[in-house]
Amino acid sequence: MNWKNLDELKAFDALKNTEPVNVRDVMTGSNGADRVKNYSVPMAEGMAYNYAAKAVDDKILDQLQALADEAELTQKYAALYNGEVINTGEKRLVLHHLCRSQLGKDVVVDGVNKREFYTTQQHRIAEFANKVHSGELTNEKGEPYKIVVQIGIGGSDLGPRAIYLALENWAKVNNKLKMEAKFISNVDPDDASAVLYGLDVEHALFILVSKSGTTLETLTNGAFVQDALKKAGLDPAKHMIAVTSETSPLAKNEGFMDAFYMDDYIGGRYSTSSAVGCAVLSLAFGPDVYADFLNGAAKADETAKDPDIRKNAALLDALIGVYERNVLGYDTTAVLPYSQALSRFPAHLQQLDMESNGKSVNRYGDPVNYVTGPIIFGEPGTNGQHSFYQLLHQGKTIVPLQFVGFKESQMGNDVVIEGSTSQKKLCANVSAQIVAFACGKDDDNPNKRFDGGRPSSVIIGEKLTPASLGTLLAHFENKVMYQGFTWNINSFDQEGVQLGKVLAKRVLAHDTDGALAVYSDLFEI
Amino acid sequence: MNWKNLDELKAFDALKNTEPVNVRDVMTGSNGADRVKNYSVPMAEGMAYNYAAKAVDDKILDQLQALADEAELTQKYAALYNGEVINTGEKRLVLHHLCRSQLGKDVVVDGVNKREFYTTQQHRIAEFANKVHSGELTNEKGEPYKIVVQIGIGGSDLGPRAIYLALENWAKVNNKLKMEAKFISNVDPDDASAVLYGLDVEHALFILVSKSGTTLETLTNGAFVQDALKKAGLDPAKHMIAVTSETSPLAKNEGFMDAFYMDDYIGGRYSTSSAVGCAVLSLAFGPDVYADFLNGAAKADETAKDPDIRKNAALLDALIGVYERNVLGYDTTAVLPYSQALSRFPAHLQQLDMESNGKSVNRYGDPVNYVTGPIIFGEPGTNGQHSFYQLLHQGKTIVPLQFVGFKESQMGNDVVIEGSTSQKKLCANVSAQIVAFACGKDDDNPNKRFDGGRPSSVIIGEKLTPASLGTLLAHFENKVMYQGFTWNINSFDQEGVQLGKVLAKRVLAHDTDGALAVYSDLFEI
Repeated sequence: MNWKNLDELKAFDALKNTEPVNVRDVMTGSNGADRVKNYSVPMAEGMAYNYAAKAVDDKILDQLQALADEAELTQKYAALYNGEVINTGEKRLVLHHLCRSQLGKDVVVDGVNKREFYTTQQHRIAEFANKVHSGELTNEKGEPYKIVVQIGIGGSDLGPRAIYLALENWAKVNNKLKMEAKFISNVDPDDASAVLYGLDVEHALFILVSKSGTTLETLTNGAFVQDALKKAGLDPAKHMIAVTSETSPLAKNEGFMDAFYMDDYIGGRYSTSSAVGCAVLSLAFGPDVYADFLNGAAKADETAKDPDIRKNAALLDALIGVYERNVLGYDTTAVLPYSQALSRFPAHLQQLDMESNGKSVNRYGDPVNYVTGPIIFGEPGTNGQHSFYQLLHQGKTIVPLQFVGFKESQMGNDVVIEGSTSQKKLCANVSAQIVAFACGKDDDNPNKRFDGGRPSSVIIGEKLTPASLGTLLAHFENKVMYQGFTWNINSFDQEGVQLGKVLAKRVLAHDTDGALAVYSDLFEI
Repeated sequence: MNWKNLDELKAFDALKNTEPVNVRDVMTGSNGADRVKNYSVPMAEGMAYNYAAKAVDDKILDQLQALADEAELTQKYAALYNGEVINTGEKRLVLHHLCRSQLGKDVVVDGVNKREFYTTQQHRIAEFANKVHSGELTNEKGEPYKIVVQIGIGGSDLGPRAIYLALENWAKVNNKLKMEAKFISNVDPDDASAVLYGLDVEHALFILVSKSGTTLETLTNGAFVQDALKKAGLDPAKHMIAVTSETSPLAKNEGFMDAFYMDDYIGGRYSTSSAVGCAVLSLAFGPDVYADFLNGAAKADETAKDPDIRKNAALLDALIGVYERNVLGYDTTAVLPYSQALSRFPAHLQQLDMESNGKSVNRYGDPVNYVTGPIIFGEPGTNGQHSFYQLLHQGKTIVPLQFVGFKESQMGNDVVIEGSTSQKKLCANVSAQIVAFACGKDDDNPNKRFDGGRPSSVIIGEKLTPASLGTLLAHFENKVMYQGFTWNINSFDQEGVQLGKVLAKRVLAHDTDGALAVYSDLFEI
């Protein structure tokens, strides 16, 4: 297998030298209708990735296919899930797909079958959650736990939180909400204070999540909570479990009711599928719902194996993104889910993408001569329409867009106003925005003119359920992975977060000079 | 007064032809300490804007001053608050500063003194809120209202919501939380369903906010709520007030307990200071807290008048932003508040900035030949550190940063771990990040190398209170205004949101063809 930089690939040269497509031209008129019908890739769970409004045509698609082939992208994916050392920086395997349990060979490390390891943790968590839900496990007064609070930061927070919020209302109306979940993440003391304020701590179960058992923010918030429990006359050990690595100080620790394990082969931002997401989501919704979610993800992993970009949504989405970044020169991508339940999904994708691919060196540590991961931001539609869409429509900087929408609402409660339900209005807005961005509108008054030509794709699903959410999450995980392969970077380390940590420790130790000493004074540290 | 395009200004030419400053060079070593001490502008409420880590030096600052002078920026600000037609697109005055009541001349339109108009609405709302809080105004059973729910979208949602969240915990510990507030915004039926699910509607007071009284999302959600009230056997008119214009169908309407008025001279994204923010925030926190918030904003408005950029934080922040956008070529700016209470403040600034300055034509409607407003995104630190900061530190694209931090927490509850409080850790992290971004760190391993040279500013405050929050909000409003003046664009209309609305209506009327018809089919509309 070759691991070449993007600018060493012949197919990339060809791509750069091809006449770009004007989205406005190809989407206006009857050609547009044909594109919308044809430029669509089926995804699992009845979803589809539609890329009609992207700046591609059959010729460019053929070149993207050649790029995928020359870069051996699907072979690299297979190498990853079959246990090759893909995280070259930290010399680690990358195994989050194995949590979904249905892909590739067994991977054995130091005598441990990793698929079995992950599955075992899922079963242990399921058993624990069932005991909590049935009332077999109780607090010190023999009363059931009613609420679960995750204490973690970064990947231990954003992914599980986004997924919890995405399913909370679905669970309420489907009688699947076993325990309400809350999250404490920030070292800002007001974060923990606010969650604890008025909380029924007596009936709360806290999950302390830190792989190393040394994450400063998380340990601090853990101590914050233990303090609060003691002040309430409760035994912290009866209210806290740990999700950590087997070698961490939090494992086999009497301060916790139980501990569930993760390992070094799943990075924080990919850990919604590991014990990190499993514990809080199984407690909140029950193990069956979590299993459905993983199954949805597994199906997306399966379709991501297809070497044909026209049949592999994650691969195609990745390559179009590379084309937009490295040929068309766009810095930013907006993720715009038309679903209020996905309110924090863009924040999770922001981490997933920017932490994975915000790199300047290739997998061997050599600087690359091309741009890599884009800046990601987003908010749910229709809210965004009344906010930053002004710039997206008429600003000087073009931002490629990634829409997501569902035909049905989650809660099924709706109202007919002016002849249509809110859900139909929501879907009408996605459709309208895609066409408005692509086709624009002429006007004699330049202030009312829309140039169009602003590319977007849309993922269309039936309904946001545990399974379709799993598919959606895995789609983006696999997209980001494929982009990392294309850029020949290591998407699985994050050296860029280290320097800040080191300097913060120096400030707290009063070991500062120069600018750092003065900032430290200004904040009266 | 001249209204010239940026590229017609001599000072802009001079700026473009000046050697840029390398942030790493000037911030490393003892020079850095001097910069941090000296490059600071006092703001109201004991806050300060520190720009030491920005890519400027005294020469560039002099040129930015010359640019401010040549573009007559502070004169334009005076023209605005004294009632000139600054919104040239819609031929309207721009009067949000008058809500803060302490600036400029009286402005009379059609015989109405607008300052008096805004103040009168504040007094009417204060009186109403006091009656609700005292129990003089009750529901149909004579019981007090306990919760307030704002129904609005865009500016009627993001600003008031961000401000509510910023003060909710402060209010709890200071015994100022009169009523919990919730918000319904999205046309997604799951948004209203989720808020209404399990809500004590019997004791809820809803505020329907729509200037025109015709905003489809808001009217739909209003009907949604009225339905729910009727189903609960309640009289909607005893549970709903309106914030609208005097000529709207919602004014003097028997379906509402009362109506409070706004007008055409305050755009949605500036309406936290108008009746839109006043009603929900006065009901939530009491009129006194809201008055403190407005006073903090008024003080920022006052300092924003100073023609000396070294004494005017809003003006300087604006000009540095223009320099970064139009000379250094950065597309995006990240807003990073080290305060969990400001969790939705970046989303508000995203609207404020991108809807105001995401334009391609000047105030006369002529296309401009330079880039205008940047893309804005952000999340609270320290959370962002464990997420997208990887790209900010080591990615290929430089993103200017805007930090905000406070010396004290809001709730005063804290814990000492490893010799420091969480609040000190929080502040240590801001300080560390600024220096890490600016100075970087060499390493033989390029994967662990930080180039530095990544510019940032920081606003440092004592504590996030109603008054300092008012100052902070007005700072950004005035910054965005000054950037709009510098680019010679109209920051106060939003023609870019219209086309999507028109097309969505066509979809709902089944009046579609081409691509739009097929998308409409795919969503089964």
